[in-house]
Amino acid sequence: MMNALVVLSGGQDSTTCLYWALNRFGAGHVAAVTFDYGQRHRIELDCAVQVATLAEVPHTLLPIDTFAALGGNALTDARMAVRPGVDARTCLPNTFVPGRNLIFLTFAAALAYQWSIHHLVTGVAQTDYSGYPDCRQPAIQALEQAIRLGMDYDLTIHTPLMFKTKAETVRMARELGALPALAWTHTCYNGQQPPCGVCPACDLRAKGFAEAGIPDPLVERFRGSPA
Amino acid sequence: MMNALVVLSGGQDSTTCLYWALNRFGAGHVAAVTFDYGQRHRIELDCAVQVATLAEVPHTLLPIDTFAALGGNALTDARMAVRPGVDARTCLPNTFVPGRNLIFLTFAAALAYQWSIHHLVTGVAQTDYSGYPDCRQPAIQALEQAIRLGMDYDLTIHTPLMFKTKAETVRMARELGALPALAWTHTCYNGQQPPCGVCPACDLRAKGFAEAGIPDPLVERFRGSPA
Repeated sequence: MMNALVVLSGGQDSTTCLYWALNRFGAGHVAAVTFDYGQRHRIELDCAVQVATLAEVPHTLLPIDTFAALGGNALTDARMAVRPGVDARTCLPNTFVPGRNLIFLTFAAALAYQWSIHHLVTGVAQTDYSGYPDCRQPAIQALEQAIRLGMDYDLTIHTPLMFKTKAETVRMARELGALPALAWTHTCYNGQQPPCGVCPACDLRAKGFAEAGIPDPLVERFRGSPA
Repeated sequence: MMNALVVLSGGQDSTTCLYWALNRFGAGHVAAVTFDYGQRHRIELDCAVQVATLAEVPHTLLPIDTFAALGGNALTDARMAVRPGVDARTCLPNTFVPGRNLIFLTFAAALAYQWSIHHLVTGVAQTDYSGYPDCRQPAIQALEQAIRLGMDYDLTIHTPLMFKTKAETVRMARELGALPALAWTHTCYNGQQPPCGVCPACDLRAKGFAEAGIPDPLVERFRGSPA
C-alpha cells in the first residue's frame, strides 16, 4: 500500500526528498510524480525517470500544457532568453511561473486522492527560495488547508528541506543514502550535461557540496569525460 | 484597464457572474477566461465564446490536459458513463474531479497576475454544491490565502452566488440584464441542445426559473423548434 507521493523534478532537492520519504514511509510505500509542463530542459524529465528507477519507486508523468499557453516566462517559453537579474515590475527572477508549485501540489494531491495516499512530499525550501513565494512555508501551509477543505480529504504536505541550507541538504542526502542517485539529477539552468558549473543553479549546488565537504556525485560522474 | 477576471464555464452561474462583474467593475474593465480541460460536452466551450461575445468582454481559452491524464472520472473520461447516484468510496457524484476549482482558480490567478488584475470572480455556490467541496466558502477562502502568499500578490476571489438559491440567482440575473445571455448558456449533463430537461442539472435549473417565476430564455429559444 502506498503511503506517500513525492513530487520529483529530477533535481537535487526532490531526489533527496524521495530518499527521505523512503526512510520515513518505507520501501514499497512511496510513489513519485513528475510534471511535464514544457520546461526548457527536457533532460529534467529523463533525470526524474532515472532517479525513480534507481530508487525503485513507481513513477507517474503528468502533462500540464497550461503554463506554456500562459506564456510570458523564460522557463516555459523557448522564445525568451533566461536573463540575469530580475524583472523590473515584480522583482522576481524572470524564470518565475506564478503559482507553479501551487499547481504542482494541487495536481499531486488529486493523484494522491485517487490512490488513497495521505502524504505529499515536496523539496521546496524557504532558505534559498530565490524569490519564488510559493516555496515558502506560509504559502505551503495555506495550500495544504485549501486542499484539505477543497478535496474534503486528510492530506499532509511534508517539506523536509524547508529551513535547510544547501550544505545541510547535502549532508542529509548522505545520511539517507541518496548520494548515488544525486549523480543522475539535473540542476544546471543552461540544461548542460555535464553541468556548466557557472550558472546560478550550478553555483548554488557547488557551494552546498563544498560547504558540506562532500564531492558532488554528478560532477564526479563526468570527471575525466571529454568536454 | 482590466480590473476583474471572470472564470466563465458557459453555464448559467458563471454567465450571471460575468454580468455581476460588468455591473461592479464597469464595461471595458472585465475579462473572461474559460478552461478547455477535456470536458465531456464541448458545447460548453462554444457557449462560453458566445456569452463573452454577447457581453463584449475579451475572452481567453486556456487548455488543461492534466485532468484527462489523471482520468478516472466521468466528466473528463469519455469511457465512463455518468452514473446516477454517488461513488461508494467518496460519497461524491462520480462527475467529481478532485480539486478542479482549486486548479481553475489558481491558473486564473496566474493569468490575472500577468495582466495586473486584482479581482477574480467565480460562480461557485455552497447552496447547491452537489458534494463538490471546492465550491464551499472555507475552501475558496483558504485558496485565496494560498494564492496571495504563493504569488505574493494582492488578489481577491469574489463569489457573488455563494449563498444564493437557484431562484435568487435567476432574479439576480434579471436585475443585471443577464437574461438574454442566459439563452446561450449550457447546463444539461447530457450535453443536449435543446436541453434534455430531465437530467439533474436541467431539473435544478428549471426549478430555479420556476420558483423565480421567470421563463428560462434557453428553453424559450428552442420553443417551437423541431425536436
